[in-house]
Amino acid sequence: MRLRNKPWAAPLIDAHPEYLSVRPEGMPGKWQARFEKPQPLFLEVGSGKGQFITEMAKLHPDRNFIALEIQEVAIAYILRKQVALKLPNLQLILGDGADLTTYFEPGEITGLYLNFSDPWPKSRHEKRRLTYKTFLAQYQAILPAGGQLQFKTDNQGFFEYSLVSMNNFGMTFELVALDLHHDGRVQDNVETEYEHKFASRGGRIYELLARFPEGKEKPSR
Amino acid sequence: MRLRNKPWAAPLIDAHPEYLSVRPEGMPGKWQARFEKPQPLFLEVGSGKGQFITEMAKLHPDRNFIALEIQEVAIAYILRKQVALKLPNLQLILGDGADLTTYFEPGEITGLYLNFSDPWPKSRHEKRRLTYKTFLAQYQAILPAGGQLQFKTDNQGFFEYSLVSMNNFGMTFELVALDLHHDGRVQDNVETEYEHKFASRGGRIYELLARFPEGKEKPSR
Repeated sequence: MRLRNKPWAAPLIDAHPEYLSVRPEGMPGKWQARFEKPQPLFLEVGSGKGQFITEMAKLHPDRNFIALEIQEVAIAYILRKQVALKLPNLQLILGDGADLTTYFEPGEITGLYLNFSDPWPKSRHEKRRLTYKTFLAQYQAILPAGGQLQFKTDNQGFFEYSLVSMNNFGMTFELVALDLHHDGRVQDNVETEYEHKFASRGGRIYELLARFPEGKEKPSR
Repeated sequence: MRLRNKPWAAPLIDAHPEYLSVRPEGMPGKWQARFEKPQPLFLEVGSGKGQFITEMAKLHPDRNFIALEIQEVAIAYILRKQVALKLPNLQLILGDGADLTTYFEPGEITGLYLNFSDPWPKSRHEKRRLTYKTFLAQYQAILPAGGQLQFKTDNQGFFEYSLVSMNNFGMTFELVALDLHHDGRVQDNVETEYEHKFASRGGRIYELLARFPEGKEKPSR
């Protein structure tokens, strides 16, 4: 979702290079040095205001996390939280999900999260969806062989599309939940701000856990 | 669903060998001779009382259809319809979906339908689900390379399971519909008896169209 601009956003971003990197194209292979200690590294593409990723960083001190956002004001909200929380296992990127291979080296990311990304419902915007094949190729390039992606959305059409897109890319499904908040199999779900509001009004949340192909073979179509 | 037995079922079956074959293990490669003319051949595994398959046979006179049912009384209901309708492009089988490779030769079936099969929700009954990998292997064996399966269910857990099972089998998804009766993309949906009742009460119908792998490669897991 688009957020209204805030005058405090740009100065806050300038003041905290220790937490936030802007389009970090010189960083591949160097991320672990920005954390307190090297640990498996998880990336969220499109972090919004950051409730999910900050909660995950608190719950899992044995993992490192990166929040990536393309909107300056959104990443500034996360940064404001992080300036208060000072989580040693959280870093922020103001950057573009289409440029991941310029930010990370192959296999540098252990696992990847997509939460409530913009569904871009019009057919002519298909290429902007974060589960379009060009984005999947970016994720595959920075994950290890068999790396896992966790995808959540409340948008039925976007979930239908993404099941087909990820299947056609050759990904292996591990879990499909068509009503996550009423699914006994799912433990320890960490909510985003949006998810909390939507689900509390009775909406369905969809989730897919899937792994990329082991080899770097071409997708089948 | 289990149907109550009917005293008229067995005599009716015995009286109509021109329409119905009982566990036809000597038939592989010979099915086209039982129809008015040879045409692409579509199989429904688990036809219930046969509303779907008889409707399909009426709508598509340029295709041949086979209804397969394991329950004697259910196939007798379909037979009773067919004795009245005398559709030249419909044949019936009283038999078991686990024995398809004894009824058909490789590539003899053009496309396959699974409609509202028993979801067998308990984990210990997984192997009975018609989308379990041993059944998928039976379907693949009698379809041509790239043969299509159309799967519909109202059972959320069974659909979640089947998405994972068919993906893990290496099938290529072509369409996923998470609310078929409110989906502008879906044209010409032919309903089963059960589907009509369930959807008219507001229930969600799920549909998956998927193709088997082109080659006979092993599934990835």
